Amino acid sequence: MSLKEEKMIFLIQCPDQKGLVASISTFFYKRGFNILQCQQYSDLLNGHYFMRLELSLKDLTTSRKQLEKEFAAFGEGFSLKWSVHYTDEIQRMAILVSKTSHCLYDLLLRWKEGEIHCEIPLIISNHPDLEKVANQFKIPYYCLPITPETKAEQEKEIKKLLESHHIDLIVLARYMQILSEGFVEQYDGNIINIHHAFLPAFQGANTYQRAYERGVKMIGATSHYTTKDLDEGPIIEQDVQRVKHEHTPEELKQIGRDIERIVLARAVKAHLERKIIATGMRTVIFH
Amino acid sequence: MSLKEEKMIFLIQCPDQKGLVASISTFFYKRGFNILQCQQYSDLLNGHYFMRLELSLKDLTTSRKQLEKEFAAFGEGFSLKWSVHYTDEIQRMAILVSKTSHCLYDLLLRWKEGEIHCEIPLIISNHPDLEKVANQFKIPYYCLPITPETKAEQEKEIKKLLESHHIDLIVLARYMQILSEGFVEQYDGNIINIHHAFLPAFQGANTYQRAYERGVKMIGATSHYTTKDLDEGPIIEQDVQRVKHEHTPEELKQIGRDIERIVLARAVKAHLERKIIATGMRTVIFH
Amino acid sequence: MSLKEEKMIFLIQCPDQKGLVASISTFFYKRGFNILQCQQYSDLLNGHYFMRLELSLKDLTTSRKQLEKEFAAFGEGFSLKWSVHYTDEIQRMAILVSKTSHCLYDLLLRWKEGEIHCEIPLIISNHPDLEKVANQFKIPYYCLPITPETKAEQEKEIKKLLESHHIDLIVLARYMQILSEGFVEQYDGNIINIHHAFLPAFQGANTYQRAYERGVKMIGATSHYTTKDLDEGPIIEQDVQRVKHEHTPEELKQIGRDIERIVLARAVKAHLERKIIATGMRTVIFH
Amino acid sequence: MSLKEEKMIFLIQCPDQKGLVASISTFFYKRGFNILQCQQYSDLLNGHYFMRLELSLKDLTTSRKQLEKEFAAFGEGFSLKWSVHYTDEIQRMAILVSKTSHCLYDLLLRWKEGEIHCEIPLIISNHPDLEKVANQFKIPYYCLPITPETKAEQEKEIKKLLESHHIDLIVLARYMQILSEGFVEQYDGNIINIHHAFLPAFQGANTYQRAYERGVKMIGATSHYTTKDLDEGPIIEQDVQRVKHEHTPEELKQIGRDIERIVLARAVKAHLERKIIATGMRTVIFH
Repeated sequence: MSLKEEKMIFLIQCPDQKGLVASISTFFYKRGFNILQCQQYSDLLNGHYFMRLELSLKDLTTSRKQLEKEFAAFGEGFSLKWSVHYTDEIQRMAILVSKTSHCLYDLLLRWKEGEIHCEIPLIISNHPDLEKVANQFKIPYYCLPITPETKAEQEKEIKKLLESHHIDLIVLARYMQILSEGFVEQYDGNIINIHHAFLPAFQGANTYQRAYERGVKMIGATSHYTTKDLDEGPIIEQDVQRVKHEHTPEELKQIGRDIERIVLARAVKAHLERKIIATGMRTVIFH
Repeated sequence: MSLKEEKMIFLIQCPDQKGLVASISTFFYKRGFNILQCQQYSDLLNGHYFMRLELSLKDLTTSRKQLEKEFAAFGEGFSLKWSVHYTDEIQRMAILVSKTSHCLYDLLLRWKEGEIHCEIPLIISNHPDLEKVANQFKIPYYCLPITPETKAEQEKEIKKLLESHHIDLIVLARYMQILSEGFVEQYDGNIINIHHAFLPAFQGANTYQRAYERGVKMIGATSHYTTKDLDEGPIIEQDVQRVKHEHTPEELKQIGRDIERIVLARAVKAHLERKIIATGMRTVIFH
Repeated sequence: MSLKEEKMIFLIQCPDQKGLVASISTFFYKRGFNILQCQQYSDLLNGHYFMRLELSLKDLTTSRKQLEKEFAAFGEGFSLKWSVHYTDEIQRMAILVSKTSHCLYDLLLRWKEGEIHCEIPLIISNHPDLEKVANQFKIPYYCLPITPETKAEQEKEIKKLLESHHIDLIVLARYMQILSEGFVEQYDGNIINIHHAFLPAFQGANTYQRAYERGVKMIGATSHYTTKDLDEGPIIEQDVQRVKHEHTPEELKQIGRDIERIVLARAVKAHLERKIIATGMRTVIFH
Repeated sequence: MSLKEEKMIFLIQCPDQKGLVASISTFFYKRGFNILQCQQYSDLLNGHYFMRLELSLKDLTTSRKQLEKEFAAFGEGFSLKWSVHYTDEIQRMAILVSKTSHCLYDLLLRWKEGEIHCEIPLIISNHPDLEKVANQFKIPYYCLPITPETKAEQEKEIKKLLESHHIDLIVLARYMQILSEGFVEQYDGNIINIHHAFLPAFQGANTYQRAYERGVKMIGATSHYTTKDLDEGPIIEQDVQRVKHEHTPEELKQIGRDIERIVLARAVKAHLERKIIATGMRTVIFH
């Protein structure tokens, strides 16, 4: 929920303790801020506390650095783990794809229609197939093919591109390659993947064929942060669609495409709007 | 979300203004309270602000009266409209029914299983049919038949019963009578109705027959607070189910029953857990 | 459900009567046909019978004309109303749009990915805005602006274009103009519209604003055949999405776009695959 | 879909072959039957054919035995596997439970309201807890406790009860015991279980705790025929509900109960109405 004005968003987590809301809100009140939105979640099972705070940027009277320094000092007393984001600092998103176009197209259309707010400096693929899509939207396309021998080399090339383009968020929009542990760690919490199944069901490949064989009555898709354990990262969003015995594996795939598209778009949007705090295998999502 | 401990819940609304979160949370912090949960919503379109606050009752060191007095004084400066609820003061709910049992049964089962937390001192009906259901759950059943001539008289009887039983919440679980304007005003914000359609579609009666004739592909149900404008009160919850051309009006009715049950139960639960603030034709629901 | 082979599809309706399945299936069996799929629906309330029959085209040993003549003669005895469709005769679809791109893009992408099987000889609009989308997909774009004075004239132009391109199906993909009664009758049963609300709720314009004001908890979209009574044509498909009080009218619109897209695509696909029989205000859909 | 008249229902499966519909429908047409409904599914991937046929019982002019004999002779030529069911022969259903009441209550209520059409001669449990529920509905309750030593003995007792009561269908309404292979085989295709997860995710126990820990965004339930491979039987029905990070395992359980209830009820209803043909790990369901 938001009318258009530039904002600061704080994402905070810490051990649960008395006086948190009062202390934090007073910190900002004293500095002349209006709290536009304050969302919190106390995980009473684990004694952990999460907060998302929206403040109006126009109330900021010091430098951003200065405010961050002051908040860091303040936060030490509460063992806060936190990050701050400024909506006027547009995030830079890279999309990695293989040959399938539906997720890529969907992201680009939403981006063009202003639903997804970011810059997309480049699209990277291990296949040439989707270059024409990139061209339609006038986004540079880098084709870096892979062979078993060149896998490590290719990843290094990707890294170089991401770094030189100052990429904040990597979206694997049906990129059919497994990234190395080192790569994943470097971009920890900033890689979003779409898995074409309702995890934890049907981990791994060939999910629609297996869904057909198992005779499930619903199929789904899952978007999650990528971690070194494949298909085990914190889940951001899931959805399902009812299917019937008549549907062939091919038709399940088609139906699945619609779910993948939407589930990935929702996850990317929530990340870019700074609505997600990841914690272990789970995500706290402030809608 | 909540582990079991007794709580105070404040529901607050007021014109949006600077420093609200800080002031309110400081009010409670100073008095030694831990804020268990603080949810808020700023309706930027209308400049209106809503807050739901959960505090631990065991932190209360004065009398309830005293705290309320202090908060009232504090609230004047901000033009707060507020109410406070104590989870150890069990609410008293009356259920009004006609002949249909599915919603009544559903509420009673959830109540027995502890999903719905309240007392149910009585069930009132204009028909004798559901007395045996009331008996199964050992709840007094009052049968007050209606004829066009006795309508006003009967309502007076209902009122007397509600008052003598100190009823807080009235649930119309398929009670097929229209309540008078005076009655509705007296219990304003404390009468929940279930309408067997996806409002605002199919206002009025015979909704499943009309849904069949119109050939809709989904049917639904709506629970709402009752106001003097029939089917126009603030909507609390809605849900739908996909249907097909094969379904007869009778089958739509059966499918509809499952939706009605769940939609009414969710609304009653949200009300009893003090998660709803009504505002004009809308409800703010803090899930 | 279907592996790829060319087929004939019969859509049949008639008064319900004994021996229909046997007679019809025997008609085709005698002529050497294998019935790939036979779906039927007896509307016992209205005594009406509907059938969809899939036959393998490769079993056809006479001319199409000859078979149709024989079936017409056969059908007279049963008062059959029927049509036959050959999957190797690709249907020709025109898309009419105004300024909004999401439905247009969605249809074109599905068409390109082979989900929607047809030819799209042209896109017509009363605004120039979407010409670049048409260009991306290399489809001729005709911009025919409207003023109150030129409305009738413009429609005549559209008609001419549709006729000269031998259009079978017209899709109103957010075309914000009302078509004349004469136009609608000429293409009766072959114009599909998308309405941005869960009909019959929110007929007319400004649906998301009104949904916001009414405080509904779900919003939806409806695709239907266009008839002379606005928003009253037979419904083909509907879907909904859960929303919350936080959503602004603008956000409801965004969420609504995803529903509109999918609901329109499903309707167009079902029509092109000849799975729909319209009957009065209702549709029988053989999934 | 059905107005009330007594019917015969044939469930048929066989290798796909030419002339099936014509031959079968002619078989019945020649004997004076009106085909009320004829549903079929050709599994082109496996070359297998399935049919469900509804005929009016009042058209039967011979004995049931005689018709079955004739159809058996007819069916040999096509390698038909088939069964016939008469709606005036009410099926007899046993419900097995442990301590949890929600599924039991739900089935009994639907049964009382006429949604589920069968006789329920007995309820069997390994615990005494739900006897009072059975009493409410005046159904005999047999409590057969289990210890590791008496497990085989107890199952023998159950079998005896089922046989002496001529039970057709066994519903495991949260019966927390594993049945022996021999038992399952004897009632093959006539035992329906409800699993409190969206299979194949979360096979086994403690599903809501595990769903919480995995951080899934939807939870579900699955009803399936019980086979000797635990949680691997053909799936009949599934459904899901959206959940959030706020939900504790306890709350997931509560939400899950609503899904379990409905999913089990739909499965039982579909079975009793003879809408299901099981085939390997899958079910064909003619809705």
